[in-house]
Amino acid sequence: MAPPRFTLAELAARLGGEAVGDCASPLEGVAPLAEAGPAHLAFLANPKYRGQLATTGAAAVIVGPKDRDATAKPRLVVPNPYAAYARAVALFHPAPPVVPGIDPRAAVDPSATVAPSAFVGPFAVVAAGATVGERASVGAGTFVGEGARVGEDTVLHPRVTIYAGCVVGARGIVHSGAVIGADGFGMAPDAGRWVKIPQVGRAVVGDDVEIGANTTIDRGALADTVIEDGCKLDNQIQVAHNCRIGAHTVIAGCAGIAGSTTIGRHCLIGGGAGIVGHIAIADGVTVSAMTLVTKSITQPGTYTSGGPLMAHADWLRNAAHLRHLDRLARLARALPPQGKTDGHDDD
Amino acid sequence: MAPPRFTLAELAARLGGEAVGDCASPLEGVAPLAEAGPAHLAFLANPKYRGQLATTGAAAVIVGPKDRDATAKPRLVVPNPYAAYARAVALFHPAPPVVPGIDPRAAVDPSATVAPSAFVGPFAVVAAGATVGERASVGAGTFVGEGARVGEDTVLHPRVTIYAGCVVGARGIVHSGAVIGADGFGMAPDAGRWVKIPQVGRAVVGDDVEIGANTTIDRGALADTVIEDGCKLDNQIQVAHNCRIGAHTVIAGCAGIAGSTTIGRHCLIGGGAGIVGHIAIADGVTVSAMTLVTKSITQPGTYTSGGPLMAHADWLRNAAHLRHLDRLARLARALPPQGKTDGHDDD
Amino acid sequence: MAPPRFTLAELAARLGGEAVGDCASPLEGVAPLAEAGPAHLAFLANPKYRGQLATTGAAAVIVGPKDRDATAKPRLVVPNPYAAYARAVALFHPAPPVVPGIDPRAAVDPSATVAPSAFVGPFAVVAAGATVGERASVGAGTFVGEGARVGEDTVLHPRVTIYAGCVVGARGIVHSGAVIGADGFGMAPDAGRWVKIPQVGRAVVGDDVEIGANTTIDRGALADTVIEDGCKLDNQIQVAHNCRIGAHTVIAGCAGIAGSTTIGRHCLIGGGAGIVGHIAIADGVTVSAMTLVTKSITQPGTYTSGGPLMAHADWLRNAAHLRHLDRLARLARALPPQGKTDGHDDD
Repeated sequence: MAPPRFTLAELAARLGGEAVGDCASPLEGVAPLAEAGPAHLAFLANPKYRGQLATTGAAAVIVGPKDRDATAKPRLVVPNPYAAYARAVALFHPAPPVVPGIDPRAAVDPSATVAPSAFVGPFAVVAAGATVGERASVGAGTFVGEGARVGEDTVLHPRVTIYAGCVVGARGIVHSGAVIGADGFGMAPDAGRWVKIPQVGRAVVGDDVEIGANTTIDRGALADTVIEDGCKLDNQIQVAHNCRIGAHTVIAGCAGIAGSTTIGRHCLIGGGAGIVGHIAIADGVTVSAMTLVTKSITQPGTYTSGGPLMAHADWLRNAAHLRHLDRLARLARALPPQGKTDGHDDD
Repeated sequence: MAPPRFTLAELAARLGGEAVGDCASPLEGVAPLAEAGPAHLAFLANPKYRGQLATTGAAAVIVGPKDRDATAKPRLVVPNPYAAYARAVALFHPAPPVVPGIDPRAAVDPSATVAPSAFVGPFAVVAAGATVGERASVGAGTFVGEGARVGEDTVLHPRVTIYAGCVVGARGIVHSGAVIGADGFGMAPDAGRWVKIPQVGRAVVGDDVEIGANTTIDRGALADTVIEDGCKLDNQIQVAHNCRIGAHTVIAGCAGIAGSTTIGRHCLIGGGAGIVGHIAIADGVTVSAMTLVTKSITQPGTYTSGGPLMAHADWLRNAAHLRHLDRLARLARALPPQGKTDGHDDD
Repeated sequence: MAPPRFTLAELAARLGGEAVGDCASPLEGVAPLAEAGPAHLAFLANPKYRGQLATTGAAAVIVGPKDRDATAKPRLVVPNPYAAYARAVALFHPAPPVVPGIDPRAAVDPSATVAPSAFVGPFAVVAAGATVGERASVGAGTFVGEGARVGEDTVLHPRVTIYAGCVVGARGIVHSGAVIGADGFGMAPDAGRWVKIPQVGRAVVGDDVEIGANTTIDRGALADTVIEDGCKLDNQIQVAHNCRIGAHTVIAGCAGIAGSTTIGRHCLIGGGAGIVGHIAIADGVTVSAMTLVTKSITQPGTYTSGGPLMAHADWLRNAAHLRHLDRLARLARALPPQGKTDGHDDD
């Protein structure tokens, strides 16, 4: 089936904004400025690519207000070109509709509730008392545990696991291999052995949340682990028991968040970052890639740890001194003050 | 089904310790001091929460000997309150019993041995020659490979993979997405290509081991990879081929251990830590979160690498100097000795 | 079934090289020098083990040309002993042959194409329009999405996910839990919410690629994510959308590569390393374990970031100064030049 086509006029009607120039030619898809062909819609979202406006082969371009006259190409002028690009791609590549029905090879418990408009794929399991909402999709081989709830319009891709009692809200997307609600990591030392602390809380995921492939979100120990509405989690992220991730926070791949930590709203957590347990991070905080956050952060801003990249030979030389910063500092402090120095505020 | 209730007297009988005060009122569950309600059992395991003893709404409290008289509430006085709390939660939230039997939708090879008291879920596979012990549970969609062995009372949650020939001991718990016995990462360079080294050892997991969601433990190259008894592994941990993890060692989420490394008994490996290959770590070592261990550790203690968290602007300023520590050090050494300095012991 | 046996003469015929000494005795397997028994073939690939030549209990040894006369044992003299060892192990431990046929419990769409010589296991799914090549193996519970292609002689272990439209080339190995082609992590901010950017590119994996357990390779946003021929990826690696990994590059476990980054050919990326997005890494680059690469690398060589391992008490002392390197540097620069210093080249 051929992908749909849209004229600039049709795009303006659906995406908003002002169509300038030829509004009647059908466009066949979206492409970056540098790669766009004569039937493509391109977009200028990042100023560093403005130069490509002059050379792009695109038929039309999405631009912001201040670039309205930076090109003679047919163009859609919108306040937020990047968001308009996202929505344009969705128009040209509509998601395949959910085909209602339970595959005969699925295992749906008689006491489970699957909405008539929902899909359950082959070899999927919907256990006793679980509910699957309207138009939701439970992919092949996906497991929805006893009493778990899957909200309306949510897509669970193949091979997802939702443990008993856990919740995924509406309009969510959970990618393959994700595990929601496995036991949190809790045990008590006793005479040289570890006694497991049963994890009886839930993992509760809000609405409009996307969870990446092989990401794990543990259930709480006594209370719940909570992912608030609108959060976006990339692949291979670990969220430990009793964490709370604030609404609309974005977490990049391979980040790990230890137990009972709360992260604010609208935060950006970088790839491979680590956040220790039992701390609180304020709203609007950005954590750099592979940074370890070892204490609570109370102010918005960007925070970083770790050393800079070096040729290995340089690193070896520096690393030796790094072990002796203490001596260096004492030498320096022993000098008579000279030159401008800032105050001494070790913390 | 309502959760069970216990009086303080019943708890003392099951958990040991001395019941003080009202021993006859039924308790309905366990909660932290700050959140406990009038039918809850709370616990004081961490001294920093002692102040909450005065304000908790709990009906009764688990305390240690020295807090015996720190509250007038009915209380269970035990030597190890945290372990008693763990066991109390297990009493109030008993694990659902394993329902014996092989689901008709499972694929169990005729040459496999599944104990009559074991459970095998829908779409699970138990391959030729594999054995599943008494009261073990093989979750939906879990794969137990040819000749693999699953010990008695072990729970494999849904969607676990045990490769051919591998072993999980008794009373284990393996969470969804864990992969035990995939090929170790071994290849030989040959004329600009890589020749795969077949991995013919096994992954052997001892008794009383818990393995978290999406954790991977590779099989050995020629010999076995071994996880000794009582180890607890969190989610998304990678254990490479031919490692040996000593008994009762705990590894937090996202840690990675490279090939042929041995870790001692009763170690604590922090979240996101990395341990290079072909080294040995002594018993009783603690490795901090996101620390890279680059050489063998022969003494117990805590070890750390990496830099402290900073506001990004500070980090940028410091990072530039970090590249030139060498010059700084030479400048400092060129000074006439003054002030107290420690010896020079670069290593 | 007993493993095959080979004489040194037979091994020379299959592996090449010169057989010296007793060529007629059957050998029963391969073992390291230190562990080899009287029927074992050992190998000397790493000079540091040369001393073990004198003490090994092996029946025969694989050695390089310059060790031809370093032992009196029967020996196979080859240019590349490590590669010969790899191939010898494959001879003694042949992979079980693929048994052609589609398990009756698999779900293969009528419009899919499965080669007659291929295997499809129980509870596997091969969706509409997908193709599975000659002698390929689709493991139990593995999902091959709509229109996806699996090349000839490729092994997909149990519980792999290949999303719609994605490609795995010939002679590949994909381990359990790997997810190829999940959505890349792309969204546009819009009035405090995130708008999903549909990911309509593919993930395309070349020939002779091995992908480890629970590794994730996202599909591209508009263009494709590409893993070139001969790459070897360990477990739990994250490759984000629109990356290109050059041929024969090796990536160790837990590494993460952010979006739109290109890595050259014959690179070695260390375990737990992180590589930020939108950069380029030259051919022949080695990145150390847990190093964060924050900018493009144009020259071959080894690159490292991060601090050295210390006893935690030392780390605490040093970390305090690390926050004040700036002051240290200014103090040092304020001194009259003395001693040899290198040029000032902050970057």
